[in-house]
Amino acid sequence: MSRPYPQRRPASAPKPPPAGSENWARPWAQMKYFSYHPAIYPNMVGATSDDAAAGDLVNVYNKEGNLFGAGFLNPKARVPLRVIHHGSEPFTEADLDARLLQAIRLRRDVLKLDKTTEAYRVIHSDADGISGLIVDRYAQTLSILVTTLGVWRRIRRWLPLLHKELGTSNHVIQTDPDISLIENMRISEVPEVDDPGPRVVRVRENDVRYLVNFEDGHKTGFFCDQRDNRLRFGQMAHGRVLDLCTYTGGFALSAKIIGGCEDVTGVDLDEKAIAQAKQNANLNQTKINWTQGDAFGWSRQMIKNGELWDTVVLDPPKLIHHRDSQEEGIFKYRDLNGLAIQLVKRGGLFVTCSCSGLISPADFEELVVGVAHRHGRKLQILDHTGPGMDHPVMSNCPESRYLKVVWAVVV
Amino acid sequence: MSRPYPQRRPASAPKPPPAGSENWARPWAQMKYFSYHPAIYPNMVGATSDDAAAGDLVNVYNKEGNLFGAGFLNPKARVPLRVIHHGSEPFTEADLDARLLQAIRLRRDVLKLDKTTEAYRVIHSDADGISGLIVDRYAQTLSILVTTLGVWRRIRRWLPLLHKELGTSNHVIQTDPDISLIENMRISEVPEVDDPGPRVVRVRENDVRYLVNFEDGHKTGFFCDQRDNRLRFGQMAHGRVLDLCTYTGGFALSAKIIGGCEDVTGVDLDEKAIAQAKQNANLNQTKINWTQGDAFGWSRQMIKNGELWDTVVLDPPKLIHHRDSQEEGIFKYRDLNGLAIQLVKRGGLFVTCSCSGLISPADFEELVVGVAHRHGRKLQILDHTGPGMDHPVMSNCPESRYLKVVWAVVV
Repeated sequence: MSRPYPQRRPASAPKPPPAGSENWARPWAQMKYFSYHPAIYPNMVGATSDDAAAGDLVNVYNKEGNLFGAGFLNPKARVPLRVIHHGSEPFTEADLDARLLQAIRLRRDVLKLDKTTEAYRVIHSDADGISGLIVDRYAQTLSILVTTLGVWRRIRRWLPLLHKELGTSNHVIQTDPDISLIENMRISEVPEVDDPGPRVVRVRENDVRYLVNFEDGHKTGFFCDQRDNRLRFGQMAHGRVLDLCTYTGGFALSAKIIGGCEDVTGVDLDEKAIAQAKQNANLNQTKINWTQGDAFGWSRQMIKNGELWDTVVLDPPKLIHHRDSQEEGIFKYRDLNGLAIQLVKRGGLFVTCSCSGLISPADFEELVVGVAHRHGRKLQILDHTGPGMDHPVMSNCPESRYLKVVWAVVV
Repeated sequence: MSRPYPQRRPASAPKPPPAGSENWARPWAQMKYFSYHPAIYPNMVGATSDDAAAGDLVNVYNKEGNLFGAGFLNPKARVPLRVIHHGSEPFTEADLDARLLQAIRLRRDVLKLDKTTEAYRVIHSDADGISGLIVDRYAQTLSILVTTLGVWRRIRRWLPLLHKELGTSNHVIQTDPDISLIENMRISEVPEVDDPGPRVVRVRENDVRYLVNFEDGHKTGFFCDQRDNRLRFGQMAHGRVLDLCTYTGGFALSAKIIGGCEDVTGVDLDEKAIAQAKQNANLNQTKINWTQGDAFGWSRQMIKNGELWDTVVLDPPKLIHHRDSQEEGIFKYRDLNGLAIQLVKRGGLFVTCSCSGLISPADFEELVVGVAHRHGRKLQILDHTGPGMDHPVMSNCPESRYLKVVWAVVV
């Protein structure tokens, strides 16, 4: 976890209810200041009704005493109020359930994801109006991550609904031990967590098959956010193809199977990831040159050897983790992009990704362009993309944006 | 033209050649300061060799006297030097011709545009390393815009090459009278300009057919930059669909034909555009509710009437023309987006475009989000897109970026 362990706040005496609040719909919480953000921190929460308990969906009143919305209350958590609805009309548990259906309808009926993939994000937390719930679908299995008490208390109710609407049959529920402690989520409340679910699931995305591995906690070995980028990469890849930081091989496999490229190399430091990449290649009955190695050192060696590729994709893990160490992360992005650019033939395709939310799309492009120019290359920038549309961003929570991809010809 | 008519500079005495320049490859020009930008303004150009003539491809030397690149010279123009190549190796007329082939190869072999459309941009000026040449392909016809003397002098040589590589048979060449004057492009030099070419061409883009009309100068009634957005809009549109500022009907037709939507309305102020939209609908043997009207006033009336749509797209013409009138343009974007958002049902899809280069993608999104919040709506932002990849941006000329599209669910 990136956040410091929170100080348990001293139990303070309950605040007296504000004048006129006897007419407010219970349970309620009042905000002391205006904010449209979903996360309301302790100093912004005023009084709460005496019947408002941790995990409740409470009516949220503003400073003036008008109904402002509704949210999950969790008084002792680091974020005691998570506003998931804004508006002066009542918002009920049934409205909350309807959010699940809206999220599913977007993926299935509007984005029509079932046509192209068995793996997609069904619910994306605040971006689908359900703070603390992430649901990924992998064929018949739901991979569920819960990070708020409000969701934790309801997940048992929601599981049958999710399975019914999605036609799925089993699930794996995950929590983060640190967050569970902060949010006071007790395992005993949700016995389904103990259901181990399947350990490995096979999914098809466009024409490529992947193994999704639930054994290593959050790391399933598969990121469905890159789906559209993998497809496009497959369609555009040509000649000799290099996938730097290939992880479990998604871009490399797309170049091979969708693009029909003969000579594809995938490099990653993570031995387990490379092992899974090999399994993925086997599953697709194809062969790729998998190399276990550090992208920095390996690339330096290839530059020395005078090796060049027609198509290079660079999709490193998150390199900027905290605001404090932003400089260090930016330095790594510069270094790695500088190395990768030198491995692209003039006129070749370069696709570079960053999943660090702490660098904006504009700053990331500027960084990549700066590095290219320093190496005497210009970039013919073809496009910028983000994650698939099953990973939206709610307008009052823009900092949840993270993935950006620059597509360019190196000239 | 957005630029004020330039003052003709007084003819200055030729600058003496710098020491050592007798060994420089002729013809040459020297830059006085470092710049990586393609457009080099008068105060940045030093001496030129005595044999360097307007329209020549000259070797460009830097302040230190090292070969820095190559570019089009046009001493009396507002931009006397357009650097189209950076690097210390020689750059010849043959290399320039190769640029055309590279641009065509990108569209045909990498982007594989012929699979999906008969209308695409073949050459995008500086972004394809040929300052002042725009070539659009519409089936068998090339629509060519020339804005530099360097291109003007070579277009006769390039026409057979373009037709051969693209398999096209005729062309329409356009110039801008103001630019022609500034660049000193004489019509008599390129007799092909007088070839009227076809007046109307039919093209197919994905499953939709359009008329492209060459009678009204630059305005062909068709913008191929929105191709991918039209397709995606067609795939996502549902229920009752509104296309505000429909122009010649692209988004509306996509909703109808690709999306199979029954109830589609297209609104535009431009009577000629609406007439062409009708023709486009006829060509596709389909019917759409075309309405000629001002988007501002029409939308206000519809809000009063309580009308709502499941899907709304807003693609107004450029509303920010100059830096001086940026505020005014931004005000219009706010107003129009505020009106359009009020016409979207809760849970409906809103797609909003800006083709003003003077507002960045980040600022445009912030504007749209601010307007939505002011109207008590949040936006579930699904994606940001730009023009198709046949409209790239060269990294040393980022200000040529213009089109951005925000895709959102109104919640």
